[in-house]
Amino acid sequence: MNWIEIAGHTGALLSSITFIPQVYKVWKTKSVGDLSLYMMLIVFTSTLVWLAYGVALNLWPVILANGFICFLSILLLYFKFAFSRKVIVVAKVKESE
Amino acid sequence: MNWIEIAGHTGALLSSITFIPQVYKVWKTKSVGDLSLYMMLIVFTSTLVWLAYGVALNLWPVILANGFICFLSILLLYFKFAFSRKVIVVAKVKESE
Repeated sequence: MNWIEIAGHTGALLSSITFIPQVYKVWKTKSVGDLSLYMMLIVFTSTLVWLAYGVALNLWPVILANGFICFLSILLLYFKFAFSRKVIVVAKVKESE
Repeated sequence: MNWIEIAGHTGALLSSITFIPQVYKVWKTKSVGDLSLYMMLIVFTSTLVWLAYGVALNLWPVILANGFICFLSILLLYFKFAFSRKVIVVAKVKESE
């Protein structure tokens, strides 16, 4: 394996794990206010496109990497709605006292 | 151009613009607390690796896409430090009053 192949695998690995720290931070802090919903939607959409591309060409690295990123983007989207909603619910309880 | 090529170009375009909404949101709100520094560092590192890969194989789509993402990740890193520091400065002023 020459250095170019190593760079390719390293790049693919780094791209795959990009969102792990962000998912962990959001899971720990339950705070999503600064995160862009549109970024998450773009990530989700792009992984679906790359998955179709990988399946069509039978490129397992592309399928595995984007399958994993897709999973992470779904998690981030879920957290974005779950933890944003939590704030709204609190406001309602206060009004009814 | 068949649908697979179109999917490849679409995927590359979506991957390139992923961080634009996040950069815009941070620039507008000046709030970076929820963003993971480690995510930004991984993005920055992965784009450097992909740039080396693209240059070595003379792959212009890889060079252009990762050059642009690298620029966006540098912007996010700058904002992360610039807007985090702002909070610390305010705290110091309060102590000295």
